[in-house]
Amino acid sequence: MVERRTPIPVPEAVSRVMQFAVEGENEIIPIEASYGRFLAEDLIADHDVPHFDRSPYDGFAVRAIDTKDAGQENPIEFEVVEEIGAGSVATKQVGAYQAIRIMTGAQMPEECDAVVMLELTTELERDGKKYMVIKRPFKSGDNVSFQGEDVAKGSVLVKKGTHINPGIKALLATFGYHQVTVAKRPIVGIYATGTELLDVDEALVPGKIRNSNAFMVSAQIQRAGAEPKYFGKLPDNFELCFEAIRNAIDQVDILITTGGVSVGDYDYLPAIYEKLGAEVLFNKIAMRPGSVTTVAQLNGKLLYGLSGNPSACYVGFELLARPVIRTRLFSNKPHLQKIKAVLHADFPKPNPFTRFVRSTIGFDEGKVSVTPSGLDKSNVVSSLAGANALMILPGGTRGYGRGMEVDVLYLEDQEGSKWPWA
Amino acid sequence: MVERRTPIPVPEAVSRVMQFAVEGENEIIPIEASYGRFLAEDLIADHDVPHFDRSPYDGFAVRAIDTKDAGQENPIEFEVVEEIGAGSVATKQVGAYQAIRIMTGAQMPEECDAVVMLELTTELERDGKKYMVIKRPFKSGDNVSFQGEDVAKGSVLVKKGTHINPGIKALLATFGYHQVTVAKRPIVGIYATGTELLDVDEALVPGKIRNSNAFMVSAQIQRAGAEPKYFGKLPDNFELCFEAIRNAIDQVDILITTGGVSVGDYDYLPAIYEKLGAEVLFNKIAMRPGSVTTVAQLNGKLLYGLSGNPSACYVGFELLARPVIRTRLFSNKPHLQKIKAVLHADFPKPNPFTRFVRSTIGFDEGKVSVTPSGLDKSNVVSSLAGANALMILPGGTRGYGRGMEVDVLYLEDQEGSKWPWA
Repeated sequence: MVERRTPIPVPEAVSRVMQFAVEGENEIIPIEASYGRFLAEDLIADHDVPHFDRSPYDGFAVRAIDTKDAGQENPIEFEVVEEIGAGSVATKQVGAYQAIRIMTGAQMPEECDAVVMLELTTELERDGKKYMVIKRPFKSGDNVSFQGEDVAKGSVLVKKGTHINPGIKALLATFGYHQVTVAKRPIVGIYATGTELLDVDEALVPGKIRNSNAFMVSAQIQRAGAEPKYFGKLPDNFELCFEAIRNAIDQVDILITTGGVSVGDYDYLPAIYEKLGAEVLFNKIAMRPGSVTTVAQLNGKLLYGLSGNPSACYVGFELLARPVIRTRLFSNKPHLQKIKAVLHADFPKPNPFTRFVRSTIGFDEGKVSVTPSGLDKSNVVSSLAGANALMILPGGTRGYGRGMEVDVLYLEDQEGSKWPWA
Repeated sequence: MVERRTPIPVPEAVSRVMQFAVEGENEIIPIEASYGRFLAEDLIADHDVPHFDRSPYDGFAVRAIDTKDAGQENPIEFEVVEEIGAGSVATKQVGAYQAIRIMTGAQMPEECDAVVMLELTTELERDGKKYMVIKRPFKSGDNVSFQGEDVAKGSVLVKKGTHINPGIKALLATFGYHQVTVAKRPIVGIYATGTELLDVDEALVPGKIRNSNAFMVSAQIQRAGAEPKYFGKLPDNFELCFEAIRNAIDQVDILITTGGVSVGDYDYLPAIYEKLGAEVLFNKIAMRPGSVTTVAQLNGKLLYGLSGNPSACYVGFELLARPVIRTRLFSNKPHLQKIKAVLHADFPKPNPFTRFVRSTIGFDEGKVSVTPSGLDKSNVVSSLAGANALMILPGGTRGYGRGMEVDVLYLEDQEGSKWPWA
């Protein structure tokens, strides 16, 4: 008999899964390995930046008061009493009409309050002494980077949960984080199910196809910030699948299977969830592709039964597994970022269910455009290659046409979204 | 004496560097490690997809001709002679008013030309035989995925030089690439110069700052797709720097130093390039920040003298080193992608030189917006944290204001651009 399933709306499915999304664990790693990881603690300034008044240019540190009468017709001469490089400090006192040659980044001598850029001076020597001449006045504070003007000590510079990009790595270095507390990468297990699946290095035989879902999902897991653990593929055999899945659960934070969730006679996942004693959160979503996507929980651990169909599998992962992974990585915007875009194609046929179309975002003259990245058939793996977004076409009685505005979920993005489904 | 340098326009600087950009080497890696790498060969379909006619649904394979008179008032009964799962093939012949129970993905029996979805049938048993009944006709080809309809054998699916995303990894698996020929990651060496630099784990002392550039550039190198090799930091000592740099050159594909390129007395890079016999391609660019960015070549190997100022260093890398790295990775769009955006801030002060402002791109109601990610001072490391773009404000006699359209270089993007400077 065909099992009757009641489809639930996408936001309801996401919401049910998110009830089991929890923050993950911390891990301390060297700063060298921190790029691309997620901060598990706020990044706080342990000192002012700059932590001393410093010169942003090569030039001469002077007392501004001595320059006030300088002009084209009234050059003023300063005796150069010392020279300090970045990393050194002045040892001499600077008196009236004296200057210190100062390099970019060096600390201002205590008596000085302005820097004259090298290009605005001429230098000379007389009686074994060095002098420099200027022809314009400077105000107190001119060309000085003041202590704390960039960052005040104690400021929260970057929030916990943020993806570490090159700029944040620079901040970590600046503030002495040679060890960085990051979110531990959740371990996401993968089993591909289906007797029809061949290994990648096997030759094709009639009726069989190579397993591609496991490799695809594994990359999606990495893109989301987690660590894939591929257990292998399973034939359509209930006992074998049951044992394999039961044994895998304890080794992972999240378990994903692909295939076996439809209503076919060899779709064993529903029965496996039942025998495990797992609570099925839903087994039908009002969307295409991926309507048979099933998620269960066992003692709070999420078990994803993604479709064996590549596109459905892809969509199911991004909508339902990614936000759980990002929550473990401490993100407070764990979902895909939703943006508006102008549709560059026609979908004249109405569809009763919300469709998620693999698409490519473009930027044309400042406007976001979106184009399907391939044929829109749920079994077309080729449409996935160019996809950097999922276009959302809400179900209803009308089709969609070129030039209409649609919502798009942006895949290649670290920004995310709090709750795109409102 | 102050050395006089002639600034060249940004496109000219990029162009001089790109004369030394060459394609890199190949490397063969397992598919499991391929996510995020760059294809070194076109990805070609070694077979049709599907490679046999198959059923996209669970249901019954039938001969369409037998269904032509079916209707609500005229149910037609089919004898179910066999059941085949995905990965199996039919062993029985299908005659008139016979059907084969078929699972999603299974190969069509030779005699059948349509699939009836399970939901549209009722099943019954009589005298130990199985039957199913339908109440509507089907046309030849209904619900059949035909051989080659997704991808024809021999098609180029993805071009050499493309970044391997989850969809492309799925294609690699589908087409049997269990070993993938990718671009070898170029080795990019880094030396940070400056006596003022402390290690990340050192306490602050007067006049000194922690080395952040090396860590930042190292992450930029990873983002670009290359492998950083950090050699350490060097004090402002000519002989020591010269020896260190000379020894590093043979160990890397590209060498980056930070600091030491200004016109200060301790800026030794120009003299080091001279002593090495390297040809300086330029030592001054008409841009802010990063005007002192210097690039030299020695036997075709590029030596980058990036500014010690964090923002200038960042910009110099992205404009001048990234496209060389991406060319080694076989990209034909090696530069940052340039897009239009609406400015969400005021820059009232005219600037004689083109400015590259670290910025954050946003997507508001389908329009790309851009906002500076921090204070716009070239020494403000904090402005880098939120940066996902560089806003280009061309030099000239006017300022820029909120609502104006500007060009933006998008940093967090794998798409790239052929030549954004035209």
